[in-house]
Amino acid sequence: MTPFAVTAGEPAGIGPDLCLLVARHAHQAPLVAIASHDLLQSRAHLLRLTISLIPVSIHALPTTPAEAGELYVLDVPLAAPARAGVLDSSNAAYVLETLTLAAAGCLDGHFAGMITAPVHKGVINDAGLPFSGHTEFLADLTGTDQVVMLLATRGLRVALATTHLPLKDVPAAITPPTLSAVLRILDHDLRAKFAITSPKILVCGLNPHAGESGHLGREEIEVIEPTLAALRSEGLNVIGPLPADTLFTPKYLDSCDAVLAMYHDQGLPVLKFKGFGAAVNVTLGLPIVRTSVDHGTALDLAGTGNIDTGSLETAIETAYEMAGVSR
Amino acid sequence: MTPFAVTAGEPAGIGPDLCLLVARHAHQAPLVAIASHDLLQSRAHLLRLTISLIPVSIHALPTTPAEAGELYVLDVPLAAPARAGVLDSSNAAYVLETLTLAAAGCLDGHFAGMITAPVHKGVINDAGLPFSGHTEFLADLTGTDQVVMLLATRGLRVALATTHLPLKDVPAAITPPTLSAVLRILDHDLRAKFAITSPKILVCGLNPHAGESGHLGREEIEVIEPTLAALRSEGLNVIGPLPADTLFTPKYLDSCDAVLAMYHDQGLPVLKFKGFGAAVNVTLGLPIVRTSVDHGTALDLAGTGNIDTGSLETAIETAYEMAGVSR
Repeated sequence: MTPFAVTAGEPAGIGPDLCLLVARHAHQAPLVAIASHDLLQSRAHLLRLTISLIPVSIHALPTTPAEAGELYVLDVPLAAPARAGVLDSSNAAYVLETLTLAAAGCLDGHFAGMITAPVHKGVINDAGLPFSGHTEFLADLTGTDQVVMLLATRGLRVALATTHLPLKDVPAAITPPTLSAVLRILDHDLRAKFAITSPKILVCGLNPHAGESGHLGREEIEVIEPTLAALRSEGLNVIGPLPADTLFTPKYLDSCDAVLAMYHDQGLPVLKFKGFGAAVNVTLGLPIVRTSVDHGTALDLAGTGNIDTGSLETAIETAYEMAGVSR
Repeated sequence: MTPFAVTAGEPAGIGPDLCLLVARHAHQAPLVAIASHDLLQSRAHLLRLTISLIPVSIHALPTTPAEAGELYVLDVPLAAPARAGVLDSSNAAYVLETLTLAAAGCLDGHFAGMITAPVHKGVINDAGLPFSGHTEFLADLTGTDQVVMLLATRGLRVALATTHLPLKDVPAAITPPTLSAVLRILDHDLRAKFAITSPKILVCGLNPHAGESGHLGREEIEVIEPTLAALRSEGLNVIGPLPADTLFTPKYLDSCDAVLAMYHDQGLPVLKFKGFGAAVNVTLGLPIVRTSVDHGTALDLAGTGNIDTGSLETAIETAYEMAGVSR
């Protein structure tokens, strides 16, 4: 069995806590936490958790799952001791090193996939390191031109045509080439990574009521409809554009494999409402399997134990699914 | 007891069917369908429903609820016989006449409120009558400058800062004066019409992550935050701007009375997902009580009986609540 890497993310946040908490039970495939051994040990102490940390190296990775109460650790030393809740930019390079090790290990086959706990973009930038997010960092590392952000929870997958853009910049960012590229990646990865033979994708309109025949905006007529028509002629099963406020109802959702929202706040409120505490962020388009929690570093909760592991558990299960472990 | 008016809307759509279906059981306060008597009779026949239609006039309105299986009808004759599913612009003036009667009756105290079944904007315009929607029509009739659209379902109320605008026009439409006016109306009507002593309102940001401190748009910093600060100094309890994708979770929603979304597809997908089949559209800011179903005319379902009355039932109950019947 090929192991999966779990990066513990920002050392002052809840990432290390989550790695320890999910190690209380056994998993289907081996998980290797890529993190500082000392950090995990001191955080376990703070949380009054008894977890045996089992050192591993990239040259000697485990092939069977750890027992309940055990955690495989690939040690990456911190630059400075971490305190729960207190950011320290001297550990920024450490955070990026854990990501680099995980991604390189996925590319060369040491890992079957990587699951990421949250990082803190601001403190990495404060250290003078350019970093605009996990997704962009991993795209660069793996030489990928375009990736697609997909959020998933039980019974619903929502991909985004645009992600972290000011709302005013969204309409111009949706063009036939960008929309086609996103839909091709989504269709491809639903087949390749989710074993869906013939994915059915529902596509939201950009405007309210999907433009209401041009009365509420013309992007549906000028951009989205022709793009979908061209993709259909290539064999993609893309339905729409549909009004976002009627699409997210059982009549539509029960028969589809994914929804494509045109922008962040059109698709994610309903996904996170439905999947509260158990949603996963998946990066499609990469040559590796990568899933992530859907929440931030929650600095104020680090070391308290008062956190929910639902999103990390979902991220682990989804990585297994994408790598074919649970099929 | 003052009765409530229910306008049956587009005669070719499901409005008449809904009026008949909800008359199968008794209601808390008298309901008067404003519609063609002949239309209701023939639609009842089509649906194989036995409902006794009881004629009433604006000068002799009922003061007690009808029994189960009875429906009070204020007759407005059609210009041409209506066929289920077939639009006919010669009946457009009829549709507007039902609305005018209901609104006038609310203004002069004959009705305690009005509940509207769906109309078909296109066929009214085809008849050469200017009409951009119920809300605007009623605002005009009642001499109201600004109204606010609120969608509600059990446990969630979502108001909109902007409604039926192309997405590209949304950012410029949100200014300190428009946003203040919307929030003042929302706060006022939550007190006056929903008997909430001290309403707590959560306000979404415009941009993803509520702008992330200016990295994803500056409208939060330049428009929304100063507007909310000014309203707080007047005593309004307005919280935000908050990221829309984390706001719609129990942690936030459980303690608030309403959410203000900045635009249609930011707030309504989650509202309709949560309230599927039982959501109501309320117009705030009017001098009268007006609620509506949250769906369209569903021409293809008219006369079939295969429809859900949940939204009209919720609209009736909400009108009762707003008029103080159920308090």
